[in-house]
Amino acid sequence: MFKVGLLGLGTVGTGAVKILQDRLGRNPLLAEIEIAKVGVRDLAKARQVELAAGVLTQDLDSIVADPEICIVVELLGGLEPARSLILEAIAHGKHIVTANKAVIARYGPEIYEAANQAGVYVLLEAAVGGGIPIIKPLKQSLGANRIASIVGIVNGTTNYILTQMTQAGAEFADVLADAQRLGYAEADPGADIDGLDAADKIAILASLGFGGRVKREDVYCEGVRGVSAVDIAYAERLGFTVKLLAIASGQQGDLSESLQLRVHPTLLPKEHPLASINGVNNGILVSGDPLGEVMFSGPGAGAGPTASAVVSDILNIVGILSSSDENPALDPLLSCVHQHYCQITPIEELQTRFYARFLCRDLPGVIGHLGTCFGDHRVSLESIVQIGFQNETAEIVVVTHQVREGNFRAALAEIQKLEGIKAIASVLRVLSSQEV
Amino acid sequence: MFKVGLLGLGTVGTGAVKILQDRLGRNPLLAEIEIAKVGVRDLAKARQVELAAGVLTQDLDSIVADPEICIVVELLGGLEPARSLILEAIAHGKHIVTANKAVIARYGPEIYEAANQAGVYVLLEAAVGGGIPIIKPLKQSLGANRIASIVGIVNGTTNYILTQMTQAGAEFADVLADAQRLGYAEADPGADIDGLDAADKIAILASLGFGGRVKREDVYCEGVRGVSAVDIAYAERLGFTVKLLAIASGQQGDLSESLQLRVHPTLLPKEHPLASINGVNNGILVSGDPLGEVMFSGPGAGAGPTASAVVSDILNIVGILSSSDENPALDPLLSCVHQHYCQITPIEELQTRFYARFLCRDLPGVIGHLGTCFGDHRVSLESIVQIGFQNETAEIVVVTHQVREGNFRAALAEIQKLEGIKAIASVLRVLSSQEV
Repeated sequence: MFKVGLLGLGTVGTGAVKILQDRLGRNPLLAEIEIAKVGVRDLAKARQVELAAGVLTQDLDSIVADPEICIVVELLGGLEPARSLILEAIAHGKHIVTANKAVIARYGPEIYEAANQAGVYVLLEAAVGGGIPIIKPLKQSLGANRIASIVGIVNGTTNYILTQMTQAGAEFADVLADAQRLGYAEADPGADIDGLDAADKIAILASLGFGGRVKREDVYCEGVRGVSAVDIAYAERLGFTVKLLAIASGQQGDLSESLQLRVHPTLLPKEHPLASINGVNNGILVSGDPLGEVMFSGPGAGAGPTASAVVSDILNIVGILSSSDENPALDPLLSCVHQHYCQITPIEELQTRFYARFLCRDLPGVIGHLGTCFGDHRVSLESIVQIGFQNETAEIVVVTHQVREGNFRAALAEIQKLEGIKAIASVLRVLSSQEV
Repeated sequence: MFKVGLLGLGTVGTGAVKILQDRLGRNPLLAEIEIAKVGVRDLAKARQVELAAGVLTQDLDSIVADPEICIVVELLGGLEPARSLILEAIAHGKHIVTANKAVIARYGPEIYEAANQAGVYVLLEAAVGGGIPIIKPLKQSLGANRIASIVGIVNGTTNYILTQMTQAGAEFADVLADAQRLGYAEADPGADIDGLDAADKIAILASLGFGGRVKREDVYCEGVRGVSAVDIAYAERLGFTVKLLAIASGQQGDLSESLQLRVHPTLLPKEHPLASINGVNNGILVSGDPLGEVMFSGPGAGAGPTASAVVSDILNIVGILSSSDENPALDPLLSCVHQHYCQITPIEELQTRFYARFLCRDLPGVIGHLGTCFGDHRVSLESIVQIGFQNETAEIVVVTHQVREGNFRAALAEIQKLEGIKAIASVLRVLSSQEV
């Protein structure tokens, strides 16, 4: 019997307990797992699951130090006390299962160094993509490949919001309020809508796919607050869908391991495989050589899917423990052995296409001035269209060919000063079908 | 250093050697793998890869018996000598990696029994879905779930043919001839177009997903020879796409482990996630509790993708061997420990919708007779439409509600005898959006 201690009994913890208590039709190895202790803040709170007397405790330190427990499942979320409890558990020789992307994205090197020294696993399938298997496939199934890119819709809240904005033509603030009412967005939605959650996740995926450590602060990050219904409508007309993408990609043909790491709303051609990932679903596209492209998609959040991932990690550790002697070495595919940090390409060096919307005074020649500014900075345009005219303001939408982001920004800085330009209403990147 | 012996150096074998010889940017564990021997039929044949002197051999028995080799990679395909060589290698204590769905679907129990006794792994990621990770995710990532269904497009050749028929409105025979010219279909295409390859694969997936052995002959199997351009066109009009689906599903709410196992061309609602899997791609949708639905999609065949899966299996074994002592027990998640056989529901008991096309003499009342026959057998119709009238023949297309297949067939047997019916031109099953 393998004894497990849970830290936290929120929705995911409750989901995990439900699986462990209702084993019929699931993997028979579940019978080897016993929930020894569950750490909670409030013993008196009503729970959806029944636990034997003495299992619930407020003393989380006693769980991570319990000599009977071999696997600690951290489901607290947030940075502290999660980080300290994980490190303490590792110091006591416990294997760790966690759904905590924030703590791994920020303290991964510290945690993995401690885990490698202690000879324990830190598994985190639930940290990215909810119930979608993506962490273990990257570790165990795709390692033969030279990964070219990982592109994902990895935040369900923002995908729900963008899908609603697209389907209902609604504005961001209204959809967000709806999403909060429905429980798809949190009261404090910043981590989701500012792209921080997606950035945590792509940092983790990049590290696994490209085999190096990634500094969380190296992920360039723009959220969806700036996306308006108007832009989504124009994008539709141009054949694009707007999605918040998390992207990790190597430089084409460059093996120096320099990565682009970025999260931003993106115009995606409607025929792109990720364009049809809607609502709270997640989708992750991995490209590699000689693999080509594979996609993983499904429910990216929610109690059930996330609990599925958490329990699968517990099963993995139990499978390994039940097949090995007292002190086996770590399986290098399942542990995290990177020592070096990936080199990150600054966002200015990104080669991408842009969509930009300008509010202009309808002065004759403003399109010409725009074109000249872009041309001066070697930004080649695919289209430049005056869309509407209202209240003495004309809207001009520009789509560029592939350009260096630094050049595009320099052009924008100059355009902002043009007499005919009232405002740069929005700037979004565009993914080509051929690209990533 | 872990020495590997390859049986076969066709496209997949060559792809695997290329990966192993060009390690930059791939998992560093590849450096621990040495290609010790490669068994081929013809030593003189020109090869795309260079191998050290003495590595190529025609003596396949010497590979499976070589005491230096710890992993034997079987890439011969077909039943014999693949089966015998695998068993011989196991008897010599070698771990096995294979891409051979036919041999595993038919001799799985014999092979796994031998492997369990010898304490070796038999990994087969490449056997289903080419480069798409699906075997390991089912074993390692989804085990916490009670699997409800596995529905897949798992044969690239037939998917290519159906996609071409749909997009070009072409007839089966013409598209098949094209596919053969392009190398997407073999000269003897029977295994693909009669659904046998897909049946092998769903037998394997079902066994993994539902945790029991599956007899290959229990898989009900219809190929795509009977699908005509006319049916595809009618399906399109009705909002469906025609796909060859391989389906394993439990009875709803029934935990007796009785499975439906079937391969047949299917009308799929266009909004179904598998409807957009086109060309030679594969897609596999797994439903479970509490997971919900996850989908895996990508290149289902080809040298590169399949080699990616083969080498990932080699890496997995090397990872385990490099972290364990001399004689570790098998990880129960990665080995195959089922003893019982899944109970299979006969196809007559299937509850499904049907599409049928009848050629009729335009006798007044033929629609009435059809309706009466179906009604007598408790087959409730969603629509019955006379589509065309040509050469004294009317075409009537019927779509049913969910019915018991046995009842539907009994109705058809009676309909065949009706005076107004010239022929039952085609019968296809229809998947509801809600279903699986």
